[in-house]
Amino acid sequence: MRILLLNGNTSESITQALVAEAQRSAAPDTVIVATRCARGAEVVASRSAEVVAANAMIEAIAAFKEPYDAVLVAISFDTAVSALRELLSVPVIGMTEAACHVATMVGSRFGVVLPGERNAAIYRERIVACGFEPRLAGMRVIGSSAAALYADPDSAVVSIRIAAKALIDEERCDAVVLAGAALVGLQRRIQPEISVPLIDGIACGIGMLESLVRLNFPKPKSGSYAVPASAQLQNIDPALAALFAYPAALQP
Amino acid sequence: MRILLLNGNTSESITQALVAEAQRSAAPDTVIVATRCARGAEVVASRSAEVVAANAMIEAIAAFKEPYDAVLVAISFDTAVSALRELLSVPVIGMTEAACHVATMVGSRFGVVLPGERNAAIYRERIVACGFEPRLAGMRVIGSSAAALYADPDSAVVSIRIAAKALIDEERCDAVVLAGAALVGLQRRIQPEISVPLIDGIACGIGMLESLVRLNFPKPKSGSYAVPASAQLQNIDPALAALFAYPAALQP
Amino acid sequence: MRILLLNGNTSESITQALVAEAQRSAAPDTVIVATRCARGAEVVASRSAEVVAANAMIEAIAAFKEPYDAVLVAISFDTAVSALRELLSVPVIGMTEAACHVATMVGSRFGVVLPGERNAAIYRERIVACGFEPRLAGMRVIGSSAAALYADPDSAVVSIRIAAKALIDEERCDAVVLAGAALVGLQRRIQPEISVPLIDGIACGIGMLESLVRLNFPKPKSGSYAVPASAQLQNIDPALAALFAYPAALQP
Amino acid sequence: MRILLLNGNTSESITQALVAEAQRSAAPDTVIVATRCARGAEVVASRSAEVVAANAMIEAIAAFKEPYDAVLVAISFDTAVSALRELLSVPVIGMTEAACHVATMVGSRFGVVLPGERNAAIYRERIVACGFEPRLAGMRVIGSSAAALYADPDSAVVSIRIAAKALIDEERCDAVVLAGAALVGLQRRIQPEISVPLIDGIACGIGMLESLVRLNFPKPKSGSYAVPASAQLQNIDPALAALFAYPAALQP
Amino acid sequence: MRILLLNGNTSESITQALVAEAQRSAAPDTVIVATRCARGAEVVASRSAEVVAANAMIEAIAAFKEPYDAVLVAISFDTAVSALRELLSVPVIGMTEAACHVATMVGSRFGVVLPGERNAAIYRERIVACGFEPRLAGMRVIGSSAAALYADPDSAVVSIRIAAKALIDEERCDAVVLAGAALVGLQRRIQPEISVPLIDGIACGIGMLESLVRLNFPKPKSGSYAVPASAQLQNIDPALAALFAYPAALQP
Amino acid sequence: MRILLLNGNTSESITQALVAEAQRSAAPDTVIVATRCARGAEVVASRSAEVVAANAMIEAIAAFKEPYDAVLVAISFDTAVSALRELLSVPVIGMTEAACHVATMVGSRFGVVLPGERNAAIYRERIVACGFEPRLAGMRVIGSSAAALYADPDSAVVSIRIAAKALIDEERCDAVVLAGAALVGLQRRIQPEISVPLIDGIACGIGMLESLVRLNFPKPKSGSYAVPASAQLQNIDPALAALFAYPAALQP
Repeated sequence: MRILLLNGNTSESITQALVAEAQRSAAPDTVIVATRCARGAEVVASRSAEVVAANAMIEAIAAFKEPYDAVLVAISFDTAVSALRELLSVPVIGMTEAACHVATMVGSRFGVVLPGERNAAIYRERIVACGFEPRLAGMRVIGSSAAALYADPDSAVVSIRIAAKALIDEERCDAVVLAGAALVGLQRRIQPEISVPLIDGIACGIGMLESLVRLNFPKPKSGSYAVPASAQLQNIDPALAALFAYPAALQP
Repeated sequence: MRILLLNGNTSESITQALVAEAQRSAAPDTVIVATRCARGAEVVASRSAEVVAANAMIEAIAAFKEPYDAVLVAISFDTAVSALRELLSVPVIGMTEAACHVATMVGSRFGVVLPGERNAAIYRERIVACGFEPRLAGMRVIGSSAAALYADPDSAVVSIRIAAKALIDEERCDAVVLAGAALVGLQRRIQPEISVPLIDGIACGIGMLESLVRLNFPKPKSGSYAVPASAQLQNIDPALAALFAYPAALQP
Repeated sequence: MRILLLNGNTSESITQALVAEAQRSAAPDTVIVATRCARGAEVVASRSAEVVAANAMIEAIAAFKEPYDAVLVAISFDTAVSALRELLSVPVIGMTEAACHVATMVGSRFGVVLPGERNAAIYRERIVACGFEPRLAGMRVIGSSAAALYADPDSAVVSIRIAAKALIDEERCDAVVLAGAALVGLQRRIQPEISVPLIDGIACGIGMLESLVRLNFPKPKSGSYAVPASAQLQNIDPALAALFAYPAALQP
Repeated sequence: MRILLLNGNTSESITQALVAEAQRSAAPDTVIVATRCARGAEVVASRSAEVVAANAMIEAIAAFKEPYDAVLVAISFDTAVSALRELLSVPVIGMTEAACHVATMVGSRFGVVLPGERNAAIYRERIVACGFEPRLAGMRVIGSSAAALYADPDSAVVSIRIAAKALIDEERCDAVVLAGAALVGLQRRIQPEISVPLIDGIACGIGMLESLVRLNFPKPKSGSYAVPASAQLQNIDPALAALFAYPAALQP
Repeated sequence: MRILLLNGNTSESITQALVAEAQRSAAPDTVIVATRCARGAEVVASRSAEVVAANAMIEAIAAFKEPYDAVLVAISFDTAVSALRELLSVPVIGMTEAACHVATMVGSRFGVVLPGERNAAIYRERIVACGFEPRLAGMRVIGSSAAALYADPDSAVVSIRIAAKALIDEERCDAVVLAGAALVGLQRRIQPEISVPLIDGIACGIGMLESLVRLNFPKPKSGSYAVPASAQLQNIDPALAALFAYPAALQP
Repeated sequence: MRILLLNGNTSESITQALVAEAQRSAAPDTVIVATRCARGAEVVASRSAEVVAANAMIEAIAAFKEPYDAVLVAISFDTAVSALRELLSVPVIGMTEAACHVATMVGSRFGVVLPGERNAAIYRERIVACGFEPRLAGMRVIGSSAAALYADPDSAVVSIRIAAKALIDEERCDAVVLAGAALVGLQRRIQPEISVPLIDGIACGIGMLESLVRLNFPKPKSGSYAVPASAQLQNIDPALAALFAYPAALQP
């Protein structure tokens, strides 16, 4: 099985860290292939940069010519997940929704540690959109931005540990989701000191996709995730235009 | 006051219809200026085409050099509204959220008539995201797509009338929102036969924006709608890159 | 356009303050006319006094013989809004629901600063009734009552500022609603020091009503906001009795 | 124990029917005393008539000089319940909220049969306000108004039976609430043919109040149900004014 | 009327305390009979021990041969309530759901004081299942377990008092539910110092059942609470097997 | 990896069918081991039989001495899942919650086809408890009971097909969950004619558990899923008593 890890950030070093975590998490016979956006932000840190990333992610999919069986959206806002799920016939999951699914399989309510005050509302909106709010116990913000934490992982570790403990003590959560692609892998250093599962979206996303691939559902033929009708989009990247003109072409 | 109507579709004729409706709805001293996406779909009809439209809408804003006091997102999925609200210092509203606000000012619960089976989930997700679901009485789908209805307005009128009456009788709604930019203006032909307000997003959006401009709130300095930090986005349209590099430049 | 500001309190000085704020907020061609309850409490401060105010407000409407195009319910419990919306053919809005509408147009979640511990539950019930609870981030109480704060505006300014900052820092809200008719206008002194929009119901109510008047919806002919059947109410004020006997008479 | 049945309608015959049902439901040592509004509508049938009724109900309480241990609000909109609960030191319950409490004690979800299309939204708002919506399976409307059904009970029986069966079959409810004070007692004729409990608010209200009286809770000293501060309300009925001036006087 | 108090714990001393509280709360003509589990935990303190208790409770019912008119589930997780409600034709209520019903009859939102960190999620899940979450203001945990508090009631009184006051001050609740069968009766010592009703499930459960018995609803003939079909359960206690084989035998 | 399939029914033939489906769904290196209740109902069909099954399931776990890495609760009411999750250190999932997780990974809202009118409320309560209700589009009931459908699979196939199509057409769901352990495997015959994924809990449960085992979270040390304190349960099966006395013994 080949899972395509699609990074919505342009950072090559974050992509490598994400791939490394994905490989640590994957089953022995799962191959991780990866691509990243050819344009946009090093680290997406705003609602507007996310819009650019979403478009660039679809372009990256249109440009990616190797085979794959599933797509892991490796940006913690779960950017473009529903668009890709519609467009492709293979399973698609976002790293944060995957973490929330797993969190609700291991406990009653979960907390979220996330980087950057301005991102708190964005993550909450994502959780509401997925319908997980009844299971959300609380959120804690660390650091000023994902990029700042990425630049100083030792400091990030300290902050995450404090925030996770606060969620457990004050909100009584049974699991803690660690949001933010830039923080990938840090949960492995912090888990030993935390009394409940510390949940990373990449590891969860790989697991969920391995299951979905094996479940082998047909592509929907009705509803909002059916293959869209062929459309002539103008003035866009030719590979992207071809994807919209022949959306069935990507389907097996 | 100058309101910028930003069409997420590339269709010039729909843009003209939207502007005409906006002008009919506006106060005497409101000037409607308009722009549309330079690339993407004639009529956005899928989650994936919406992603392309969102990016193109931010490009269109970056390219639009005339002054304006507010932005009406004139595509009924409310595409890119939160990104634009973050990026700009002027008020931004989507036509569907505006319609829902007004619907809940005139009655207890509202219904939604919308074009195209595959769009029903998308509109519902938008309504949930806005928090209006407690006031949503039901939805009815007409036609196969917005484009098909746009091409045959007389038939659309008949379908909308039947669907609106079904919502009133079966779901007991006190107002009916007519979703779909392509259907703009048809409510004027149908309202006389409908027993509750038939609500169009363009008229409502203009009204809400006129109020917001007059309220003259400061641009948030904290939270997820504060001006984002300057960011170097790569390989994108130069005007768009400038917008991300100097996000404050668009602020008064 | 003439908007009738209907104060549910009997206080003339608060009425004047409300009118002054309404005039500051209104479009140039909007005329504010006002009336207040002829009986009841100076400042409504309980659920039971609100019941008396509601009745007195309908009496005040029955007694008010000048023309108007819309009614702003200028008491922050939004007293009698649904009754007046049913009875009248012109748009009616409450100041607190108007503030909540606007708050959700400018940010993700909002906080509420309100006077008097005993009022917190009443405002929450109002917000739940309107369906805005999914967007409510938190509430903070200042002072012992609206009347006490009204008597000492300098102290109120200090308390509001502290409470608003607490909501922003601790609940991460993107907007703060300032509830309480007696506090009207104070937001103008406090806004400069607050990092998100500070929202007053009178200004918002005027804006929403200006839009609704321009939208010019027909009076519903079905549902719970249609004109009620003529009813013979006994032993009530004659003008009020006439209003119930000929409810259509107030309709254009 | 003496329970005061307070009818929000002025109809003497409905009051007698309500008292008769209350007496059939009460424990042997419970005495039912009753009063009704001295002004307002024979049968409240609109949001605006309810406002008049609410004021008249507080007046009726102020005028009622016999002792009582609890108040049953015997109007199915539960008019003025929270105001009376605040003002009095004895337990107060509304007939519809009482029915909903009981319905959720005997089954998983309940349905509601109610008179008059225009009332459906009002009952739903009441159920939402009480927090029972998660347990509401559906609603069915019968007849044009409560008054019309009251005038033809045999026809009402047929309509209720059909509606209750539809709720059971189509919404799979485990209990059916029969709303509408004018329909009081009809459940006794219909229950034998209905496969789940058919629930009447008067019988439930008596039962809940008997329990609350025995539980003998202290009047709250904090929060929104504490005794309000003494207030000078002007131009109102003297007995009512006295009630507001000395709210503690009604407390034991 | 005879109410069967069914203790899900095997502790005889707690059973006696529960019966004493029930007798203090009951109407003069109500007789309390009681039984407890013949096997399982002295004090149920985990999700798994609750499963054993649930089975033992049904066995206890099967073994109990005296007549009774209603069943009070006297274990604060409301263990096996829905199973017993299905199986029996008499009313069944759990002590915690009964307390929540009463709490919402006396105030706007309620708080919960409960023993043992690990139980907080269990009580919350119960409250969500009952649909009371919209009325839940907050929870506070005292002590390490119910058993520890039961062993030291003076210390428990201090802790409950502090927790109840915190809920009132910080969450602005209008009532406080005291959860935990082992704490039964302590509310009588603490109430005088608490400004809102302090609510105990046993007293409330008795009251609700007295009402339900008097309401005399028929056993449902449809839905999930109808008498289940006769079933041959193997390798179980003979009295229990007889109950499943002839479920109608327990019905009047 | 060894997954223990724990059937809450005593039927050996259903157990074999469940194991067969589990094996079809599992990864090549996953070994399915199975056990079933030694006592209780052939096919659990009521809330009360479920209580007996829950106890028997814990006994079966206590009696099962082979090693395993995870537990799949193979009874569609997800009986005893939270108790087992608390008691064991390995991952535990219920087949219906697993199906709901997967359903929300492939579409916007899902429908449920389920056997037996009386079970509809039970499944809905389970979905509410898991927090999936915001994603539930609707439910359809087929047949009189799971046992009846199991006895006539050809007829069951016809009924499921009709019900699934109704959910897709009338509720616009993007996925259909087929509930009921007795129906296991039928989805393979029906899927080809259904336009959206038809989701079976066994296949999903195996997939989710394979992921959870690989994620290798530590057993919680706090909260409601930490190992419970040692408890002396009396008069129970010795193996079960040992499990409660030394709950850590089952932990790695």
